[in-house]
Amino acid sequence: MLLKPYLLFLGEARDELAAKTAHGVADWRPDWCIGQLRLPGCKADTGLPDMGVAEAAQKGAKTLVLGIAVSGGRLPESWRQILLEALAHGMDIANGLHTRLEEIPGISEAAAKHGRKLFNVRHSDQAFDTGKGTRRSGRRLLTVGTDCSCGKKYTALALEREMHKRGLKADFRATGQTGVLIAERGIAIDAVVSDFISGAAEWLSPANEPDHWDIVEGQGSLFHPAFAGVSLGLLHGTQPDRLVMCHEPTRRHVRGLPGTPIPDVGECIQMNLALAKLTNPDCRMAGVSINTEALGRAEGERYLKAMADKHGLPAVDPIAFGVGPLVDRLA
Amino acid sequence: MLLKPYLLFLGEARDELAAKTAHGVADWRPDWCIGQLRLPGCKADTGLPDMGVAEAAQKGAKTLVLGIAVSGGRLPESWRQILLEALAHGMDIANGLHTRLEEIPGISEAAAKHGRKLFNVRHSDQAFDTGKGTRRSGRRLLTVGTDCSCGKKYTALALEREMHKRGLKADFRATGQTGVLIAERGIAIDAVVSDFISGAAEWLSPANEPDHWDIVEGQGSLFHPAFAGVSLGLLHGTQPDRLVMCHEPTRRHVRGLPGTPIPDVGECIQMNLALAKLTNPDCRMAGVSINTEALGRAEGERYLKAMADKHGLPAVDPIAFGVGPLVDRLA
Repeated sequence: MLLKPYLLFLGEARDELAAKTAHGVADWRPDWCIGQLRLPGCKADTGLPDMGVAEAAQKGAKTLVLGIAVSGGRLPESWRQILLEALAHGMDIANGLHTRLEEIPGISEAAAKHGRKLFNVRHSDQAFDTGKGTRRSGRRLLTVGTDCSCGKKYTALALEREMHKRGLKADFRATGQTGVLIAERGIAIDAVVSDFISGAAEWLSPANEPDHWDIVEGQGSLFHPAFAGVSLGLLHGTQPDRLVMCHEPTRRHVRGLPGTPIPDVGECIQMNLALAKLTNPDCRMAGVSINTEALGRAEGERYLKAMADKHGLPAVDPIAFGVGPLVDRLA
Repeated sequence: MLLKPYLLFLGEARDELAAKTAHGVADWRPDWCIGQLRLPGCKADTGLPDMGVAEAAQKGAKTLVLGIAVSGGRLPESWRQILLEALAHGMDIANGLHTRLEEIPGISEAAAKHGRKLFNVRHSDQAFDTGKGTRRSGRRLLTVGTDCSCGKKYTALALEREMHKRGLKADFRATGQTGVLIAERGIAIDAVVSDFISGAAEWLSPANEPDHWDIVEGQGSLFHPAFAGVSLGLLHGTQPDRLVMCHEPTRRHVRGLPGTPIPDVGECIQMNLALAKLTNPDCRMAGVSINTEALGRAEGERYLKAMADKHGLPAVDPIAFGVGPLVDRLA
């Protein structure tokens, strides 16, 4: 368990998506966050008060949370000074990158000197088995998407919240570093050795009561050239009874790769269902989840209506309008 | 580079497939192998002379090669004594399992004491980037399959050999521990952190001359619940121009999972082509490769003829009849 409250570090995030870990924690656990630390050139903003390490420490911050993504997960040298300063001011550090804090020169020594703890939330000591594909009790929903960073985590968290409101049994199952920071449990599946992707997904959503839903956070996309393998292993290991397709309607190419267009939503639904059947022949769609933020409210509503009509499924925006219609269909 | 010749360790392999690393090395690099060491209950046989550590050492063996697979890659405690004995007799050890030799109590110390080296061929110090999906020059062929252990590596090695015979430019690209032992280069892709599967595959088959073929060893199967994620990441990262579908016709369920039937060859071809198009829209089939060993020669020939007619593709058995028709089509 990380000590609270947090100072969220956004570095020089090149856009809001690059700071999605900070946004996720700020949006879903606002009570845990005291401020944000941004470096010159940072293009992201969580809306939390800006402050430096010294001010945050004075206001009671106990943990510096690295809230940015770096392509390939490597940590820029330039951030080292901030980390050392946070340790010197008595803060622990939580890190969601592939790089472990211990690999950065001087950090382990500084943590020891100041009696602070280092958390690499992307890494787990859990040993996994290879996937078995055996059916298990309980129900599972997986959020999938047309791209990375298109609403899979927010949709899953919103579903858990709404289901709890209605007294339904549900657990959000985190599969990425941000989800793990929010839920304080789970597995960053993209940091698991690839032989064990689906085995890790089976471990994450074990047998449960027949009316219990695991709401599993999806990762990547079957149509993203970098991450489709992770998406498929997660799909097979989760054995979902229901899928929710997540989509951001204004994006033209997949995250980070201008040469790869966003797939058609219908094609993406069909491919996910076709591949899901290997481990759960009864897998079906629960609905579509659209991030309509860039469209505005009126156009967003029109878009949702059009998606619902086109695919014959409930279409929601979990943030703007809530996930009620999806939960109606599950319950 | 491992010192030669080798003593191949087969442990208590429960069947021939469990010893596929030993078989691969014995079949493709017979000059490097001096004998096999089998424990009571072993059901595999490479045909090499049986011998213990002391006899092998006396005959000049320089490296003990662990030639068996273990589900999940963990090393049985019972083999520790053999490893210690090999080190004491002056042999290095090469290990293809997920478990590193250094994790086995006493092995590092014994290696240091006797001045011997430990090789964990499944692990690489190479740092990979995430996949980019960008097209690159040169041509690539990937062997895919209806299951694990159904001929993907043998087909790729046979293709390289036949292409070299004909003066064509070709490189076998190893993606598993056995292939790495045979080629003395490559990457065990199932040991790569899952975020980097396709990035590792891109690294493995880089830009090359326009008439050069990388013959990439496939892994797993899109229809195997444990390993499909690895198969898909490898498919996307390789960006193959041509696929060869490998199949063992007498198998009824995928390796290790009695609940999952072997997919239909045609369905498996269609799914591989559909998913390959994400990073190479021009990907096509080069042919089908069948392991007819269990059918016998006459029935094997009939089966190949039937497969060729059904799928409209060359159908070969690389061991029984050679891969000539596949290379005719590539050249």
